[in-house]
Amino acid sequence: MDVPPPRSRAQRKADTLERLRTDVDLWIASADAAGDVHLVPLSFVWDGTALTIATPRSSPTARNLLRAGEARVALGPTRDVVLVDGAVDELPIGTDPELEDAHAAATGFDPRTLAEEYTYLRVTPKMIRAWREANELEGRLLMRDGRWLD
Amino acid sequence: MDVPPPRSRAQRKADTLERLRTDVDLWIASADAAGDVHLVPLSFVWDGTALTIATPRSSPTARNLLRAGEARVALGPTRDVVLVDGAVDELPIGTDPELEDAHAAATGFDPRTLAEEYTYLRVTPKMIRAWREANELEGRLLMRDGRWLD
Repeated sequence: MDVPPPRSRAQRKADTLERLRTDVDLWIASADAAGDVHLVPLSFVWDGTALTIATPRSSPTARNLLRAGEARVALGPTRDVVLVDGAVDELPIGTDPELEDAHAAATGFDPRTLAEEYTYLRVTPKMIRAWREANELEGRLLMRDGRWLD
Repeated sequence: MDVPPPRSRAQRKADTLERLRTDVDLWIASADAAGDVHLVPLSFVWDGTALTIATPRSSPTARNLLRAGEARVALGPTRDVVLVDGAVDELPIGTDPELEDAHAAATGFDPRTLAEEYTYLRVTPKMIRAWREANELEGRLLMRDGRWLD
Protein backbone atom coordinates (compact mmCIF):
# COMPACT_ATOMS: atom_id res chain seq x y z
CA MET A 1 0.00 0.00 0.00
CA ASP A 2 1.38 3.39 -0.96
CA VAL A 3 0.97 5.68 2.03
CA PRO A 4 1.60 9.41 1.45
CA PRO A 5 3.97 11.24 3.80
CA PRO A 6 2.38 12.66 6.97
CA ARG A 7 0.62 16.00 6.65
CA SER A 8 1.86 19.07 8.48
CA ARG A 9 -0.09 20.31 11.47
CA ALA A 10 -1.29 23.31 9.46
CA GLN A 11 -2.61 21.01 6.73
CA ARG A 12 -4.33 18.77 9.24
CA LYS A 13 -6.01 21.79 10.83
CA ALA A 14 -7.20 23.02 7.43
CA ASP A 15 -8.49 19.54 6.53
CA THR A 16 -10.19 19.23 9.92
CA LEU A 17 -11.96 22.59 9.60
CA GLU A 18 -13.07 21.66 6.09
CA ARG A 19 -14.52 18.39 7.41
CA LEU A 20 -16.30 20.20 10.25
CA ARG A 21 -17.80 22.64 7.76
CA THR A 22 -18.86 20.15 5.11
CA ASP A 23 -19.47 16.72 6.70
CA VAL A 24 -23.06 15.89 7.62
CA ASP A 25 -22.64 12.91 9.96
CA LEU A 26 -20.52 11.93 12.92
CA TRP A 27 -20.17 9.01 15.32
CA ILE A 28 -20.90 9.82 18.92
CA ALA A 29 -19.95 7.60 21.84
CA SER A 30 -21.41 7.96 25.30
CA ALA A 31 -21.66 5.94 28.49
CA ASP A 32 -23.89 5.72 31.51
CA ALA A 33 -22.75 5.95 35.10
CA ALA A 34 -22.24 2.17 35.23
CA GLY A 35 -19.82 2.35 32.30
CA ASP A 36 -22.19 0.83 29.73
CA VAL A 37 -21.26 2.28 26.40
CA HIS A 38 -23.37 3.51 23.50
CA LEU A 39 -22.35 4.44 19.94
CA VAL A 40 -24.54 5.84 17.16
CA PRO A 41 -24.23 7.92 13.99
CA LEU A 42 -25.93 11.32 14.04
CA SER A 43 -26.05 14.37 11.80
CA PHE A 44 -24.57 17.66 12.99
CA VAL A 45 -23.94 21.28 12.13
CA TRP A 46 -20.71 23.19 12.85
CA ASP A 47 -21.18 26.87 13.67
CA GLY A 48 -17.49 27.79 13.76
CA THR A 49 -17.18 27.03 17.47
CA ALA A 50 -19.12 23.89 18.30
CA LEU A 51 -20.90 20.87 16.82
CA THR A 52 -24.64 20.67 17.41
CA ILE A 53 -26.62 17.45 17.21
CA ALA A 54 -30.29 16.72 17.90
CA THR A 55 -31.53 13.57 19.55
CA PRO A 56 -34.61 12.42 21.47
CA ARG A 57 -34.33 13.68 25.03
CA SER A 58 -35.04 10.15 26.30
CA SER A 59 -32.41 8.46 24.09
CA PRO A 60 -29.37 6.78 25.66
CA THR A 61 -27.13 9.29 23.87
CA ALA A 62 -28.91 12.33 25.36
CA ARG A 63 -29.14 10.82 28.82
CA ASN A 64 -25.50 9.72 28.82
CA LEU A 65 -24.13 12.99 27.46
CA LEU A 66 -26.13 15.13 29.86
CA ARG A 67 -24.96 12.97 32.73
CA ALA A 68 -21.29 13.05 31.73
CA GLY A 69 -21.16 16.60 30.39
CA GLU A 70 -18.57 15.35 27.89
CA ALA A 71 -18.68 13.64 24.51
CA ARG A 72 -16.28 11.75 22.29
CA VAL A 73 -17.07 12.29 18.64
CA ALA A 74 -15.50 10.92 15.45
CA LEU A 75 -15.75 12.39 11.97
CA GLY A 76 -14.57 10.91 8.72
CA PRO A 77 -13.78 7.37 7.64
CA THR A 78 -11.40 5.20 9.67
CA ARG A 79 -8.43 6.18 7.49
CA ASP A 80 -9.10 9.92 7.71
CA VAL A 81 -10.11 10.36 11.30
CA VAL A 82 -11.00 13.49 13.23
CA LEU A 83 -11.56 12.72 16.92
CA VAL A 84 -13.13 15.40 19.10
CA ASP A 85 -13.44 15.41 22.89
CA GLY A 86 -15.72 18.19 23.99
CA ALA A 87 -17.97 19.66 26.62
CA VAL A 88 -21.71 19.12 26.21
CA ASP A 89 -24.35 21.80 26.71
CA GLU A 90 -28.05 21.28 26.24
CA LEU A 91 -30.12 23.75 24.23
CA PRO A 92 -33.77 22.73 24.52
CA ILE A 93 -35.89 23.47 21.46
CA GLY A 94 -36.62 27.20 21.23
CA THR A 95 -33.38 28.31 22.92
CA ASP A 96 -31.53 29.31 19.74
CA PRO A 97 -33.80 29.42 16.66
CA GLU A 98 -30.95 30.54 14.40
CA LEU A 99 -28.88 27.49 15.35
CA GLU A 100 -31.96 25.28 14.99
CA ASP A 101 -32.49 26.61 11.44
CA ALA A 102 -28.81 26.01 10.64
CA HIS A 103 -29.07 22.46 11.97
CA ALA A 104 -32.13 21.75 9.83
CA ALA A 105 -30.43 23.19 6.74
CA ALA A 106 -27.19 21.24 7.29
CA THR A 107 -28.75 17.91 8.20
CA GLY A 108 -31.99 17.90 6.21
CA PHE A 109 -33.72 16.93 9.43
CA ASP A 110 -35.83 19.23 11.60
CA PRO A 111 -36.70 17.76 15.00
CA ARG A 112 -38.96 20.75 15.73
CA THR A 113 -41.53 19.17 13.44
CA LEU A 114 -41.75 15.90 15.38
CA ALA A 115 -44.10 14.78 18.11
CA GLU A 116 -41.28 13.09 20.05
CA GLU A 117 -39.39 15.47 22.34
CA TYR A 118 -35.96 16.17 20.91
CA THR A 119 -33.22 18.32 22.35
CA TYR A 120 -30.13 19.98 20.88
CA LEU A 121 -26.74 19.10 22.32
CA ARG A 122 -23.82 21.39 21.59
CA VAL A 123 -20.35 19.86 21.78
CA THR A 124 -17.56 22.43 22.20
CA PRO A 125 -14.19 20.88 21.35
CA LYS A 126 -11.54 20.73 24.04
CA MET A 127 -9.24 18.28 22.29
CA ILE A 128 -9.00 17.43 18.59
CA ARG A 129 -6.85 14.75 17.01
CA ALA A 130 -6.58 13.98 13.29
CA TRP A 131 -4.75 11.25 11.40
CA ARG A 132 -4.99 9.09 8.31
CA GLU A 133 -2.54 6.20 8.41
CA ALA A 134 -0.16 4.96 11.12
CA ASN A 135 2.53 7.35 9.94
CA GLU A 136 0.30 10.23 11.09
CA LEU A 137 -0.21 9.00 14.65
CA GLU A 138 2.70 11.16 15.71
CA GLY A 139 1.55 14.76 15.59
CA ARG A 140 -2.14 13.88 15.65
CA LEU A 141 -2.95 16.30 18.48
CA LEU A 142 -4.26 19.55 16.97
CA MET A 143 -6.18 21.14 19.85
CA ARG A 144 -5.67 20.95 23.61
CA ASP A 145 -7.73 22.66 26.33
CA GLY A 146 -9.84 24.23 23.59
CA ARG A 147 -6.88 25.91 21.85
CA TRP A 148 -5.42 25.04 18.47
CA LEU A 149 -1.73 24.22 18.73
CA ASP A 150 0.65 26.44 16.75
CA MET B 1 -32.25 13.09 -2.06
CA ASP B 2 -33.41 9.88 -3.66
CA VAL B 3 -33.51 7.22 -0.96
CA PRO B 4 -34.00 3.61 -2.14
CA PRO B 5 -36.73 1.51 -0.51
CA PRO B 6 -35.72 -0.34 2.65
CA ARG B 7 -33.87 -3.63 2.19
CA SER B 8 -35.38 -6.90 3.35
CA ARG B 9 -33.98 -8.55 6.47
CA ALA B 10 -32.41 -11.26 4.32
CA GLN B 11 -30.67 -8.65 2.18
CA ARG B 12 -29.43 -6.79 5.24
CA LYS B 13 -28.03 -10.02 6.69
CA ALA B 14 -26.24 -10.79 3.41
CA ASP B 15 -24.86 -7.23 3.23
CA THR B 16 -23.78 -7.41 6.88
CA LEU B 17 -21.95 -10.71 6.42
CA GLU B 18 -20.24 -9.33 3.33
CA ARG B 19 -19.08 -6.29 5.31
CA LEU B 20 -17.83 -8.50 8.16
CA ARG B 21 -15.87 -10.59 5.66
CA THR B 22 -14.38 -7.77 3.60
CA ASP B 23 -14.10 -4.61 5.72
CA VAL B 24 -10.75 -3.95 7.38
CA ASP B 25 -11.62 -1.31 9.97
CA LEU B 26 -14.25 -0.70 12.61
CA TRP B 27 -15.05 1.86 15.28
CA ILE B 28 -14.96 0.56 18.82
CA ALA B 29 -16.45 2.38 21.79
CA SER B 30 -15.62 1.54 25.38
CA ALA B 31 -15.97 3.12 28.79
CA ASP B 32 -14.32 2.89 32.18
CA ALA B 33 -16.10 2.19 35.47
CA ALA B 34 -16.66 5.92 35.99
CA GLY B 35 -18.51 6.18 32.68
CA ASP B 36 -15.72 8.00 30.80
CA VAL B 37 -16.04 7.02 27.18
CA HIS B 38 -13.43 6.17 24.56
CA LEU B 39 -13.77 5.74 20.80
CA VAL B 40 -11.12 4.71 18.28
CA PRO B 41 -10.82 3.07 14.85
CA LEU B 42 -9.12 -0.32 14.75
CA SER B 43 -8.58 -3.04 12.18
CA PHE B 44 -10.21 -6.43 12.63
CA VAL B 45 -10.62 -9.90 11.20
CA TRP B 46 -13.90 -11.86 11.05
CA ASP B 47 -13.56 -15.62 11.47
CA GLY B 48 -17.17 -16.50 10.76
CA THR B 49 -18.15 -16.23 14.43
CA ALA B 50 -16.42 -13.27 15.99
CA LEU B 51 -14.45 -10.10 15.28
CA THR B 52 -10.88 -10.03 16.55
CA ILE B 53 -8.94 -6.83 17.13
CA ALA B 54 -5.46 -6.26 18.57
CA THR B 55 -4.57 -3.36 20.82
CA PRO B 56 -1.90 -2.53 23.39
CA ARG B 57 -2.79 -4.24 26.65
CA SER B 58 -2.36 -0.95 28.49
CA SER B 59 -4.57 1.06 26.08
CA PRO B 60 -7.86 2.57 27.30
CA THR B 61 -9.71 0.35 24.82
CA ALA B 62 -8.18 -2.88 26.20
CA ARG B 63 -8.60 -1.87 29.81
CA ASN B 64 -12.19 -0.72 29.30
CA LEU B 65 -13.26 -3.76 27.29
CA LEU B 66 -11.71 -6.24 29.70
CA ARG B 67 -13.40 -4.46 32.59
CA ALA B 68 -16.81 -4.37 30.92
CA GLY B 69 -16.67 -7.71 29.13
CA GLU B 70 -18.78 -6.11 26.39
CA ALA B 71 -18.10 -3.96 23.35
CA ARG B 72 -20.07 -1.74 21.02
CA VAL B 73 -18.65 -1.80 17.53
CA ALA B 74 -19.63 0.01 14.33
CA LEU B 75 -18.76 -0.99 10.78
CA GLY B 76 -19.35 0.93 7.61
CA PRO B 77 -19.99 4.60 6.89
CA THR B 78 -22.70 6.51 8.75
CA ARG B 79 -25.23 5.86 5.95
CA ASP B 80 -24.57 2.12 5.78
CA VAL B 81 -24.22 1.20 9.42
CA VAL B 82 -23.64 -2.18 11.02
CA LEU B 83 -23.75 -1.93 14.83
CA VAL B 84 -22.57 -4.89 16.86
CA ASP B 85 -22.94 -5.42 20.60
CA GLY B 86 -20.87 -8.35 21.72
CA ALA B 87 -19.09 -10.19 24.48
CA VAL B 88 -15.35 -9.64 24.81
CA ASP B 89 -12.81 -12.40 25.40
CA GLU B 90 -9.09 -11.87 25.67
CA LEU B 91 -6.68 -14.08 23.74
CA PRO B 92 -3.15 -13.15 24.81
CA ILE B 93 -0.52 -13.50 22.10
CA GLY B 94 0.28 -17.18 21.52
CA THR B 95 -3.19 -18.45 22.43
CA ASP B 96 -4.43 -18.98 18.87
CA PRO B 97 -1.64 -18.73 16.26
CA GLU B 98 -4.04 -19.48 13.40
CA LEU B 99 -6.25 -16.57 14.36
CA GLU B 100 -3.19 -14.36 14.86
CA ASP B 101 -2.02 -15.21 11.33
CA ALA B 102 -5.50 -14.46 9.96
CA HIS B 103 -5.54 -11.13 11.79
CA ALA B 104 -2.15 -10.16 10.34
CA ALA B 105 -3.25 -11.15 6.83
CA ALA B 106 -6.55 -9.25 7.06
CA THR B 107 -5.22 -6.09 8.66
CA GLY B 108 -1.68 -5.86 7.30
CA PHE B 109 -0.57 -5.36 10.89
CA ASP B 110 1.14 -7.97 13.07
CA PRO B 111 1.38 -6.98 16.75
CA ARG B 112 3.50 -10.08 17.45
CA THR B 113 6.43 -8.25 15.88
CA LEU B 114 6.26 -5.25 18.25
CA ALA B 115 8.08 -4.53 21.49
CA GLU B 116 4.94 -3.10 23.10
CA GLU B 117 2.69 -5.73 24.68
CA TYR B 118 -0.42 -6.20 22.57
CA THR B 119 -3.33 -8.47 23.20
CA TYR B 120 -6.11 -9.87 21.01
CA LEU B 121 -9.71 -9.17 21.92
CA ARG B 122 -12.42 -11.30 20.38
CA VAL B 123 -15.90 -9.76 20.16
CA THR B 124 -18.67 -12.33 19.72
CA PRO B 125 -21.87 -10.64 18.51
CA LYS B 126 -24.96 -10.82 20.68
CA MET B 127 -26.93 -8.13 18.90
CA ILE B 128 -26.53 -6.78 15.37
CA ARG B 129 -28.39 -3.89 13.80
CA ALA B 130 -28.00 -2.62 10.24
CA TRP B 131 -29.48 0.36 8.43
CA ARG B 132 -28.73 2.91 5.74
CA GLU B 133 -31.21 5.79 5.81
CA ALA B 134 -34.02 6.68 8.20
CA ASN B 135 -36.46 4.51 6.25
CA GLU B 136 -34.42 1.47 7.37
CA LEU B 137 -34.58 2.21 11.09
CA GLU B 138 -37.59 -0.05 11.30
CA GLY B 139 -36.40 -3.61 10.92
CA ARG B 140 -32.77 -2.78 11.75
CA LEU B 141 -32.48 -5.58 14.33
CA LEU B 142 -30.87 -8.61 12.65
CA MET B 143 -29.48 -10.60 15.59
CA ARG B 144 -30.66 -10.90 19.18
CA ASP B 145 -29.08 -12.99 21.97
CA GLY B 146 -26.51 -14.20 19.47
CA ARG B 147 -29.09 -15.60 17.02
CA TRP B 148 -29.93 -14.25 13.59
CA LEU B 149 -33.62 -13.43 13.30
CA ASP B 150 -35.57 -15.34 10.65
